[in-house]
Amino acid sequence: MTTRFYNAKILNGDMTVADGELCVRGGVIECVCGACENGGDYEKEIDCKGGLLIPGFKNAHAHSAMTFLRSRADDLPLHEWLNEQVFPQEAKLTAEHIYWFTKLAILEYVSGGITAAFDMYFEPEAVASAARETGFKITMCGAVNDFGTTPAKLRDYYEKYNGYDELVAYKLGFHAEYTNSVGNMRAVAEMSRGYKAPVYTHMCETKAETDGCIERHGKTPPALFEELGLWEHGGGAFHCVHVNDDDVGIMARNRIWAVSNPCSNLKLASGVAPLTKMAAAGINIALGTDGAASNNALSMFREMYSAVTLQKYLTNDAAACPAYNALNWAFSGGASAMGLEGCDCLAAGKKADIVMLDLNRPAMLPHNNIVKNIVYSGDASAVKMTMVNGKILYYDGEFFTGDKAETIIEKTRDLMKDFD
Amino acid sequence: MTTRFYNAKILNGDMTVADGELCVRGGVIECVCGACENGGDYEKEIDCKGGLLIPGFKNAHAHSAMTFLRSRADDLPLHEWLNEQVFPQEAKLTAEHIYWFTKLAILEYVSGGITAAFDMYFEPEAVASAARETGFKITMCGAVNDFGTTPAKLRDYYEKYNGYDELVAYKLGFHAEYTNSVGNMRAVAEMSRGYKAPVYTHMCETKAETDGCIERHGKTPPALFEELGLWEHGGGAFHCVHVNDDDVGIMARNRIWAVSNPCSNLKLASGVAPLTKMAAAGINIALGTDGAASNNALSMFREMYSAVTLQKYLTNDAAACPAYNALNWAFSGGASAMGLEGCDCLAAGKKADIVMLDLNRPAMLPHNNIVKNIVYSGDASAVKMTMVNGKILYYDGEFFTGDKAETIIEKTRDLMKDFD
Repeated sequence: MTTRFYNAKILNGDMTVADGELCVRGGVIECVCGACENGGDYEKEIDCKGGLLIPGFKNAHAHSAMTFLRSRADDLPLHEWLNEQVFPQEAKLTAEHIYWFTKLAILEYVSGGITAAFDMYFEPEAVASAARETGFKITMCGAVNDFGTTPAKLRDYYEKYNGYDELVAYKLGFHAEYTNSVGNMRAVAEMSRGYKAPVYTHMCETKAETDGCIERHGKTPPALFEELGLWEHGGGAFHCVHVNDDDVGIMARNRIWAVSNPCSNLKLASGVAPLTKMAAAGINIALGTDGAASNNALSMFREMYSAVTLQKYLTNDAAACPAYNALNWAFSGGASAMGLEGCDCLAAGKKADIVMLDLNRPAMLPHNNIVKNIVYSGDASAVKMTMVNGKILYYDGEFFTGDKAETIIEKTRDLMKDFD
Repeated sequence: MTTRFYNAKILNGDMTVADGELCVRGGVIECVCGACENGGDYEKEIDCKGGLLIPGFKNAHAHSAMTFLRSRADDLPLHEWLNEQVFPQEAKLTAEHIYWFTKLAILEYVSGGITAAFDMYFEPEAVASAARETGFKITMCGAVNDFGTTPAKLRDYYEKYNGYDELVAYKLGFHAEYTNSVGNMRAVAEMSRGYKAPVYTHMCETKAETDGCIERHGKTPPALFEELGLWEHGGGAFHCVHVNDDDVGIMARNRIWAVSNPCSNLKLASGVAPLTKMAAAGINIALGTDGAASNNALSMFREMYSAVTLQKYLTNDAAACPAYNALNWAFSGGASAMGLEGCDCLAAGKKADIVMLDLNRPAMLPHNNIVKNIVYSGDASAVKMTMVNGKILYYDGEFFTGDKAETIIEKTRDLMKDFD
């Protein structure tokens, strides 16, 4: 499949905007130019009418199938939410549920300009199938814990789902310190050494979790993970709200990605991650939505807005954390954090994971600064098109995601009966 | 004009959702029922296909025409933003600019489910015309200050724009304590006594402003306003971020509306208003977007989400400030704060200010709790239709606001050249 976008504005890697054309051949961007020499030679020619082409957002931390719990258990204290609602409902989940509720999340992703998600959940076959069949990119993250996924299973998944499909990948990971024995964590570290692969986990999401780790192990989670050898090949940590200065130093010297989930952290009253401080220490940052049970939207627009404005609030400085940060975190940051290659910007040879924004939506006007409009006043209503790997999955309210959207909606509605 | 909405879900005043029909005659809701007896007798019959009818959101604090400064001066320290960007640019504004940039804001309002705005800006004739011609409801708020609008002008405006058009109203107000002499404030208080009318103003938005007032007057703004007799007939205060316990008591006993602008306060690093504490003290709360120069979106969805999640964060309690609060604040709170009658809920005899949400947008699924979906995962992409005073102003991406949207967009694009 070949596609030519013309009459476009194009967001460059340096966050400048140029008028021009962008052409796609297969899953790859063939050229970004003023006017394509091969114009007319493409199967699909799309008049962007001044619409802005941007790289797709990467949702660098998600539990996609948790759409089934959206608005099911809100406004509760964190532990009641987790222990009395989330865990008992999750215990009822089958692979079929996860397959369809992941597809529901993918509808939200692509209609919101997200082209890839870093997904931590159960039943990897269901998640991988949902991604492959819809044409969406999913990197799965291992979730070793004392009650379910064992290190042995992690190895199986790692072997199986890397090489499974070009849209699917799998990273080593464990759920969190507080859900794992030291033995488990040592086993994951061992695997990391064997594969020379990075390790990902939830970390310092709540104060209670961080205090608990100090009580159990005499040190903070970052200090523990470093000591256990989990980070010898880098990795990433989801949330990173309750990290102290030493922790920041440990993360920086181990090249650990901080994947922040500002909206989830706010709604669960967990706190605000010190992104400004982490960035200043040289830590790379990415953004994620977390699951719909806690957030509840799977919107990278809202994460970007919240990420930067909460830093302004936290540092008491309106000039702190400018809008460009959020876009870098959501584009190239997310791509690198989840190990996607060639997905960081729009340029020849990069992957064709592309979103078109309608710059004539009222919230995107006037065009004083288009880039800031995306971060400060953008939302899914500005998303005109989403293309993943050269294939259009969403255009003007319509989905091209294998199953019809109506089918996914109906199926998930039926399946919700299992959770009454 | 008569309109019948059928196959609808309808949000009741008590936040329950019912299946049924809603019929509109002129600017008024004729009936809300299971199935209308007069079915077939309406000029327009709209199959809602399960869409949800809700009251329109009321944006209870806005500077609508500031759309011209969107993304023009972000990521700056507050005082640099105000003194080096906002004020010099505003000095160039003519009535024509304000007329068109207010219309641009109205496009954003109606496409985001907002049916009325409480607008504080210059050139009331331009603002009133923009509202009347587009069919949008605007209550203007006086902005007496030492450099422009005098108390005498306030009286003229108050007399002229109450009774000007059924869509337009005018409230007594002054810009803020720090921009007014005591003489001005006394004059406004005198007018309030004469008209037995409430008074509105910016208050305690920043710590510097609040500290400055104490330095200048030996007391906080609420204490000063009470002493000056400004609140003898009630009123409202915009922002209310830096209020202490005594201030909260003063506001409560004077029946002062706290109009909160959480997104603007966050982005300008002003802080988070203690809404939970104010509500517990019996203060009524409404929400507003503030202007696009500071926010930058004019989205009540984002204000609602931010209002409640920031309270959870502020109080360190995920159970604090449940979603229902935000809807009450955005519907009936806003209506009462700006003095709109019959705009608080959907019921026979109430004004036909109605929004239809598409409940099949991915972020609105599944339907575990539709009301929480609105607050926690809603955005403008879920808005299918907006009706003001019985007239549809927005439907499925199209605007019916007098001038074509294209005309407003083009005109504002041209006018931006005056600010280069």
